[in-house]
Amino acid sequence: MNYDKFTTEDFRQKLNEVINNNSEQECIYKLSEIYDGCSKKDYLELIDAQLKTLLEPYKNGSIGLAQINPVAGDIEYNAKKVVKYIIHAQNIGLDMVIFPELILMGYPIEDTIDRHPVIVRENVKWLKEIAKITTSTTALVGFVEPRKSGHLTGKKYYNSVAVLSGGEIKYIVRKSLLPTYSEFNDYRYIEPSPVVGCQPADTLGNFDGDKICDCAKTMIVNGRKYGVSICEDCWNNKEFFNDTTLYSLDPIEELSKENPDVFINCSASPTRAKKEQLKHNMLSFISQRYSAPIVYVNQVGAIDNSSFDGSSRVFDKDGKLLARAKSFKEQFLIVNPEMGLGKIYPLTKGLEKTLTEQKIYTLEYEPDLERTYKTIIQGVRDYFNKTGFKRAVLGLSGGLDSTVCAVLLADAIGAENVFGVSMPSKITSSESKNDAQKLAENLGINFTEASIKDMVETTNNCLQNLFSTVEKSWNCRYKQSFTMDNIQARSRAMFLWGISNEFERCLPIATSDKSELYMGYATINGDMSGGFAPIADVPKTKLFALARWMNENREVKNAIPEAVILKKPGAELAINPKTGKPLIAEDALMPYEFLDEIIWRIENKKEYYSDMLNSEFLYEKKNPVSKETKIEWLDKFYRRMSTALYKWSILPPSVIVDSRSINKFDYKQPITSSRINYKGCDAAEIEQKIHSLF
Amino acid sequence: MNYDKFTTEDFRQKLNEVINNNSEQECIYKLSEIYDGCSKKDYLELIDAQLKTLLEPYKNGSIGLAQINPVAGDIEYNAKKVVKYIIHAQNIGLDMVIFPELILMGYPIEDTIDRHPVIVRENVKWLKEIAKITTSTTALVGFVEPRKSGHLTGKKYYNSVAVLSGGEIKYIVRKSLLPTYSEFNDYRYIEPSPVVGCQPADTLGNFDGDKICDCAKTMIVNGRKYGVSICEDCWNNKEFFNDTTLYSLDPIEELSKENPDVFINCSASPTRAKKEQLKHNMLSFISQRYSAPIVYVNQVGAIDNSSFDGSSRVFDKDGKLLARAKSFKEQFLIVNPEMGLGKIYPLTKGLEKTLTEQKIYTLEYEPDLERTYKTIIQGVRDYFNKTGFKRAVLGLSGGLDSTVCAVLLADAIGAENVFGVSMPSKITSSESKNDAQKLAENLGINFTEASIKDMVETTNNCLQNLFSTVEKSWNCRYKQSFTMDNIQARSRAMFLWGISNEFERCLPIATSDKSELYMGYATINGDMSGGFAPIADVPKTKLFALARWMNENREVKNAIPEAVILKKPGAELAINPKTGKPLIAEDALMPYEFLDEIIWRIENKKEYYSDMLNSEFLYEKKNPVSKETKIEWLDKFYRRMSTALYKWSILPPSVIVDSRSINKFDYKQPITSSRINYKGCDAAEIEQKIHSLF
Repeated sequence: MNYDKFTTEDFRQKLNEVINNNSEQECIYKLSEIYDGCSKKDYLELIDAQLKTLLEPYKNGSIGLAQINPVAGDIEYNAKKVVKYIIHAQNIGLDMVIFPELILMGYPIEDTIDRHPVIVRENVKWLKEIAKITTSTTALVGFVEPRKSGHLTGKKYYNSVAVLSGGEIKYIVRKSLLPTYSEFNDYRYIEPSPVVGCQPADTLGNFDGDKICDCAKTMIVNGRKYGVSICEDCWNNKEFFNDTTLYSLDPIEELSKENPDVFINCSASPTRAKKEQLKHNMLSFISQRYSAPIVYVNQVGAIDNSSFDGSSRVFDKDGKLLARAKSFKEQFLIVNPEMGLGKIYPLTKGLEKTLTEQKIYTLEYEPDLERTYKTIIQGVRDYFNKTGFKRAVLGLSGGLDSTVCAVLLADAIGAENVFGVSMPSKITSSESKNDAQKLAENLGINFTEASIKDMVETTNNCLQNLFSTVEKSWNCRYKQSFTMDNIQARSRAMFLWGISNEFERCLPIATSDKSELYMGYATINGDMSGGFAPIADVPKTKLFALARWMNENREVKNAIPEAVILKKPGAELAINPKTGKPLIAEDALMPYEFLDEIIWRIENKKEYYSDMLNSEFLYEKKNPVSKETKIEWLDKFYRRMSTALYKWSILPPSVIVDSRSINKFDYKQPITSSRINYKGCDAAEIEQKIHSLF
Repeated sequence: MNYDKFTTEDFRQKLNEVINNNSEQECIYKLSEIYDGCSKKDYLELIDAQLKTLLEPYKNGSIGLAQINPVAGDIEYNAKKVVKYIIHAQNIGLDMVIFPELILMGYPIEDTIDRHPVIVRENVKWLKEIAKITTSTTALVGFVEPRKSGHLTGKKYYNSVAVLSGGEIKYIVRKSLLPTYSEFNDYRYIEPSPVVGCQPADTLGNFDGDKICDCAKTMIVNGRKYGVSICEDCWNNKEFFNDTTLYSLDPIEELSKENPDVFINCSASPTRAKKEQLKHNMLSFISQRYSAPIVYVNQVGAIDNSSFDGSSRVFDKDGKLLARAKSFKEQFLIVNPEMGLGKIYPLTKGLEKTLTEQKIYTLEYEPDLERTYKTIIQGVRDYFNKTGFKRAVLGLSGGLDSTVCAVLLADAIGAENVFGVSMPSKITSSESKNDAQKLAENLGINFTEASIKDMVETTNNCLQNLFSTVEKSWNCRYKQSFTMDNIQARSRAMFLWGISNEFERCLPIATSDKSELYMGYATINGDMSGGFAPIADVPKTKLFALARWMNENREVKNAIPEAVILKKPGAELAINPKTGKPLIAEDALMPYEFLDEIIWRIENKKEYYSDMLNSEFLYEKKNPVSKETKIEWLDKFYRRMSTALYKWSILPPSVIVDSRSINKFDYKQPITSSRINYKGCDAAEIEQKIHSLF
């Protein structure tokens, strides 16, 4: 809701309504929600005045969790958001306001700070100026800290949080544990801090391991002792992780030695499948273990492939969830862990159900679909917003992939900004065309039909001539090739990129899904080409589930025609000579249920070929599969995956959804490693191979 | 030279010739060269017998540097090479044979070991079987070591070297310093070793920080004491690097405490501009500093973007270069650091000249061109070999980019395997067509002409209709667009990918150069699309220099028509309305000399916008540039670079040549970070911006 549009009269009335019809605590949250949807200065002041009064009894120990969405590298934009919420926190008399990790820079930073060293200097300048405006409210602001000038051992920067109040910087807290796996690359530029918690302000930009101050590592604010850490610093409890942790130091354990009243953690933690349960249980464990509340503030919004879900939260000293901010939304959440002030906004529903379940390994998608949907929506929306794009054009084939993409795009950037183009060939059935058109109508997106017949014909004519010439020099022409299939896919991409070039701020969409990308079953410069690939991390079986979920849960029900969900996926690029009908993808690959379970086992359970061969798949419970067929499918999977590596390397940006993703910044493998023997040899075989060399 | 083709008679005669006409030392190297070009067992045995006799006086302290080219993840292939050279070293009675870092796996490994955990198990199995065949020659073999099963603190693996002899594993050496910058990602999976040098063999797969053996860290082989380290471990001398190092520990310093007679370093160190000088001086410094020779064995060959130059080397105890293996070639180099047995094979010539120069920052390309040429040749060749491709097809426009690519491809994979296609449009001049054809003739590559006229016409017709429809819904059509330009580039790519689909093992080539990629001056699915991008890390001014260098230094002189080098670069995609002639790239961008110096300053000197604005460019020395124009160019550069980020993310694999590269695995930046304020603000401005928020 945008309250700026309200007249002053209406706005005052709205506030009065809230105040008159709600409990005191409820009022605080309702008014805060209005504040989040407001930018007019006088309106904000009205809310501030009300909140200040309401918060008076909760003042001591009160904290604002400023869950905001930064733009990577845009210091001014991020800093202004920080300033807005510092002023707000001060106006309403909070003890403290906390921002996510590296908030001035946006997380992740990657090589941005190396190619643009100016932004590090800028984020320090902004930090110092922001410090000056602080009064009695303490602000925790994350930034990239240059270590020192001159001689240096280690990386150039710290990942730091500055503690600001009374017009100055009071302390600097530096991150000790540096995630360097999956999408994380902290150690690339960041030096691990040799000490946890607070160090004096005058160490800013001039700190080294041999200068560690022997002062308290916790800090006192309004009589309470706080232990501050940064993101990964709180993810290393040996007991919770069953003695299998990534680092030897546990910063929380270190801080606990000073018996803080409250732990604070500034985070930038992207959402992934199954991570919510882990995070919930882990934070709950810590607060209980140390009998102190933990206040966890997370970044929200997407930066390229990483979609941060927010869901900042507070656990009380008994490990009970006291407050949780919204998922996938900016929010300023006021809490008082000591006095039990807090509100629990819902997580995505399915997740909520399974939150305390221990069994993390399951192929079940059901609990995850709302999260999947929102992760992608946010990923698409922020990619468009932050790169300055507004419109999307995509091919609508009447198949599942393009259909789901169209729904996601309509919801992410607005139906009016989406153009669906049905681009039939002579193979395209009238059902497919109708399904595409019906979908467009249901969604309210723009739609047109443009035949690729002429394009395909002309291209084919040109190429047949060219091939005859090449054949004179090269005697390696395939008897059967996929050239014609690819010409169709590429002609369509030619149309979409054409529209993108001709109309302002318009991106074409790559509609490939995860199962098909794993199999290299996507055309380069064809369906896998685009400015963004919304479903590149969603396997086909989950897409079916997602389609059904969207039909049930979107405001407009059943936007996806049932026929699209019911028909067998196929690219309609070629005719199956056996059936005379368009080729079905599963005929060329293998049953999607089986395929998706292979992917899931590799990504989640790190299984070997032999593990899979020797254990029963869910698919097999219903459909007996002979050993020969199973071997054939597994071999096909590994063989095709190895030749798909190149395609993954040129995949457009896509949002990470699953616990692993073939996204090149998440799960990378040299293209030239395609000759891996995925089956392995036994020792006797190896011995024999070696002796044959003598 | 392939000696397998020789008859036994001829082969014996060849050996006799060598033996009769050379000094003893020279004989050793000549025979070794023949060995490297041989695979017939009886021929190898003949050489072994001769070498054994020749080496008798040098036996004590003799070492073989096995500089080999592994395939990432292909354990069997790599292990068999290791076995071949262990047998060889044993046959000729060497004390030791040393292989590059992680040789069983190939470096880098990236997420390969996570997606295919089977290969870690395999590399250990192979290692154990290889150990069994060792006799009196000690072999140093790099492998990925699983740390231990069960509870674990830290990453799962070590980067280790096993010391094998007498049929068993004697020691394990583990890497302590983990490069995690540029193209390196060691810390992603590797735990830094808590101790340098040798640990007992029974720690294999079961080592932890609390189990450190208090034994000697050096090892004795045939009465000599060796200090073994792995790659980065030797790059941390505080004195050499002027007290600015990446790690606090210096493994060489640690090893030196036991006064080793010789240092050994197993490396996988890719070549980059200016790295040779640094490496040469650094290794020389270390051997001199500790008065002990250092034997440095480097990987050769390319794995995806990283091209390893080999050039393994030995410095004597006075820091003098004693031996150096070939660059960009597999080689088995025999040395005896104690007795001064060694041979110095030339580095690329230009580099040799500047080897001991201190000034690393220079824009001069001259000394680097042979290295650039060989780096790319090896990068292309290994990419094709290791992925199983054999042929390449590329568009020949008669311009510099495609011309240089054609020469490089002809030299890398053989002229008969290259097809050049001239694809004129109505804008293409007859000069361009002639230049293309002449080049193809000079190179001996296959050539044909295929007009894109019909394609462009059909596409344009289809698109104009489509645009009219879209325009009815969207009122954001550009008045002037690049759509027509792009249709041409994409039609050409359609032809090339068509040929690639239709003919076996054939890759299309992306011909974009570094300067234009920095500016986003390349068409998606057009000239920047392909299976490999040979010159993506070569800026335009260096391409000119490289073209001249190739004309002078290739066997066939002046293959590149002079006209290609003389004409101003331009894509011939559009007519300049002012001149009526095809648009020149520099008109749309800025002078290449200026552009390339910006790139060079950012990558090499990490300069800010203001640094550049306030210092004189080399270009300015000859061509006065007004402040306004300079600002215009700098702004254009930063603006265009920020919108090119997406294009970089879908760039095909390309070989890293420069000291930084826009290659996405080397120098990455979020695409959504395009709003960076590259100019920065001063503190007063920031203060004012903050106060305007109150």
